[in-house]
Amino acid sequence: MDSRTGLPVVGMVGGGQLARMTHQAAIALGQSLRVLAATGVDGAALVTADTVIGDHTDLETLRRFAKGCDVVTFAHNHVPTGHVLALEADGVIVRPSADALRFVQDKRALRERLRELGLPVAARRPAFTAAGVDAVVGEPPNARREVVALVARSPWGQVASYPVVETVRRDGVCVEVLAPAPALHDHVAEHAQWLAITIATDLNVVGILAVQMIQPASGELMLDELAMRPHSSGAWTIEGARTSQFEQHLRAVLDYPLGETSLTAPAIAVANVFGGPPQGTGIDERLHHLFAEDPGVGVHLGGEQVRPGSMIGHVTVLGRDMEALRARAMRAARWLSHGETSHQSLRS
Amino acid sequence: MDSRTGLPVVGMVGGGQLARMTHQAAIALGQSLRVLAATGVDGAALVTADTVIGDHTDLETLRRFAKGCDVVTFAHNHVPTGHVLALEADGVIVRPSADALRFVQDKRALRERLRELGLPVAARRPAFTAAGVDAVVGEPPNARREVVALVARSPWGQVASYPVVETVRRDGVCVEVLAPAPALHDHVAEHAQWLAITIATDLNVVGILAVQMIQPASGELMLDELAMRPHSSGAWTIEGARTSQFEQHLRAVLDYPLGETSLTAPAIAVANVFGGPPQGTGIDERLHHLFAEDPGVGVHLGGEQVRPGSMIGHVTVLGRDMEALRARAMRAARWLSHGETSHQSLRS
Repeated sequence: MDSRTGLPVVGMVGGGQLARMTHQAAIALGQSLRVLAATGVDGAALVTADTVIGDHTDLETLRRFAKGCDVVTFAHNHVPTGHVLALEADGVIVRPSADALRFVQDKRALRERLRELGLPVAARRPAFTAAGVDAVVGEPPNARREVVALVARSPWGQVASYPVVETVRRDGVCVEVLAPAPALHDHVAEHAQWLAITIATDLNVVGILAVQMIQPASGELMLDELAMRPHSSGAWTIEGARTSQFEQHLRAVLDYPLGETSLTAPAIAVANVFGGPPQGTGIDERLHHLFAEDPGVGVHLGGEQVRPGSMIGHVTVLGRDMEALRARAMRAARWLSHGETSHQSLRS
Repeated sequence: MDSRTGLPVVGMVGGGQLARMTHQAAIALGQSLRVLAATGVDGAALVTADTVIGDHTDLETLRRFAKGCDVVTFAHNHVPTGHVLALEADGVIVRPSADALRFVQDKRALRERLRELGLPVAARRPAFTAAGVDAVVGEPPNARREVVALVARSPWGQVASYPVVETVRRDGVCVEVLAPAPALHDHVAEHAQWLAITIATDLNVVGILAVQMIQPASGELMLDELAMRPHSSGAWTIEGARTSQFEQHLRAVLDYPLGETSLTAPAIAVANVFGGPPQGTGIDERLHHLFAEDPGVGVHLGGEQVRPGSMIGHVTVLGRDMEALRARAMRAARWLSHGETSHQSLRS
C-alpha cells in the first residue's frame, strides 16, 4: 500500500510499450505503476516515477523490485518460472502465479494439458513466423485467419471476456487488429470466448489471458498461442472498450471487480506502426503530417528510439465500416512509418 | 527535443490532477511530460519521470525548469506575468504567452477588453462561491445555469471547439459536468462557441481556453470566467470526445494540427469526487465496492492524499439518458466519497 495515496502498488516486470500503456491505466486508478525495465530508455521507464533498472532473469533484482509491491505482475512472460516460485516462497504475491506461468514457458506441457482437457490444439506452425498467414503452405494447411480471445480473470474467479478480434499478419508480423473480428458467426465467437475462459479457469490464470487461435477455412477453431499479460492485440481496448485491457489487468491482479468489456463503437481498426528508414523525416514531423491528414485517428507511440522495422506504436480508428476503417488505419500507420516499411500494404 | 525519442519536451507548470491527466495524453503521443510540482506528493509528481520540485512564483526555479523544454505551458494560471515575460525574454517558448495570460490574472483588464469587443460580461457574483447557482438571490439576479465553452487554439490560429457543457455547483463547488449541456438550443450553443473562439483569437490564446458563461433564465449568455489551460470542466473529454482536452492542449502548444472534438456518446455525465471523513473506509476499499456496484463507470483519481472535502478525482459515465447518467455518476461519486460529503446530493 502506498502510504501517500492509500492505494496499492502494482509492480510490473517489463519496461516496454505494454507497461507504458498499463501506467496510463494505473494513473486513472490513483496508482503509480512500479516498473522493472531493462534500460532507462525503455518506453515505460521514460514515463514512470518508480522505475527499477535491472535484469528480469536475475533473482536478486526481482527481489529488490518486489519490495514494497502489493502485487507483482508482468508485461512479458520471460521471467524464469523458478524465480517466480522463489518470489512466492518469499511471500510476494505474484499474479499470475508460477503455477499458471509455467504453461506459457513450457509449450509442451501446455499442449499436453490442453489435449487432456479435450481442447483442439493447432499443429505447430513454423511457416507462420516466416511467411504470414496468407502464404502458409505448410501446416496447418487450411489456415484462413487468426483470431484472439482476450479474457481477464481475478483471484476469486470472476472472468470478463472481450469481443473476439482478428489479427492480420504480414511477413509473420501482426500489422492489423480488427475488432470485432469481421464476419465471425456468433456461435464461433462464443466458442472462442468459451475456450479462453476454460483455459483461464483450468490454468488458474489471474490477469489478462490472450488466446490466439486459428480459424481454418472450414472446421473448428484451433488453439495456437497463449500470453498471460496485456497483449498487443488488445491495444484497441484503450478507445474501443469501456474498460481497457490495461485497467482490466490491474483490476484483476488487485482482485478488484472487473470492468465492462463492451465495445464503444460498432467497429474498431488498429494498425501497428513500424520504424521507417533512418534517413527519412523524423517522427515528430510525421506526426504533424498525420494529424493534418486525419484529425480523428488515435495515436499511441511507445516512446522508444525508432529503429527501422521495429514496432514503435499503433493507431486506432473507430466507426461503422470496417473496410473503410482498415484503409484509414493503415494509411495513418504508413504516414507515421514514412511509407517505407515492408509492413505497409493491406492484405491482398 | 528529447534525443532519446525524437519527440518534443513539453514542460507543464503545476503538479495537480490536470497535469497528471495531461501526462496520460503525453504518453500516448510518445512524449514524457516535464512537470514543475510544489511537492513530491503532488498527483502528477507521483507518476511522471521528469519532475522538478519547486515554487512556481520563483523565477530562478522557472528558469531551471524551462531548460530543455521545447515549450512551457501551464496546468494552472498562477505564474506571475512578469516571470512569464522574463522567460520569454530568455528565449523560452511559453504558450499561452504572457500577453494572453495577463488577462486571466488581471480580471479588470479582461472585463475592459471584453467590453471593448462588445461582448456581454456578467456582473461580478460574490454570491456564487457562497451559495451556488440555484440559491443566488443577488446579482446576476436571473441566473439559471452555468455553461462552459472549451476551445483549443494553435499558434498559427487553428481553433477546435468542443460541445458546450453545463456545470452544476453545490455550495459554490462544481460537482457535476453534463456534456452536451442538456436542452441547450443549437443557436445558443453556437453562440457560446463563437464567443469562446472570438476571445481565443482576440487574446491570442494558445492551448485550451475554457470560457465559463452564465445562461440566465431569459436573455443572452453572459461571460464570467476564463482559464487558459486544461480545465476541470473538460475532464469528460477523456472518454467522451474523440480527442481529449489534454491531448488537444499538447497538440496546440506544439503547433500540431488539432484533433477531432466530436462526442463518443450521445450524453456524458461527470461527477466530481471529494474526500470523505478520515474515519471512513479507505479509498482502496471504496473502489472495490464501486466496481462491484457499477462495472461501467470510468474512474479518475488524482493520487493525492485524501482530505475531507478536497476534490480527489472524478467519475464519468456515457450513454443516452442524461438524467439516468447523472444519477449513476453521482451515486458512483458518493461511493468513492463514502457518502458523507456535503457535495453528494443532486441539484434539487
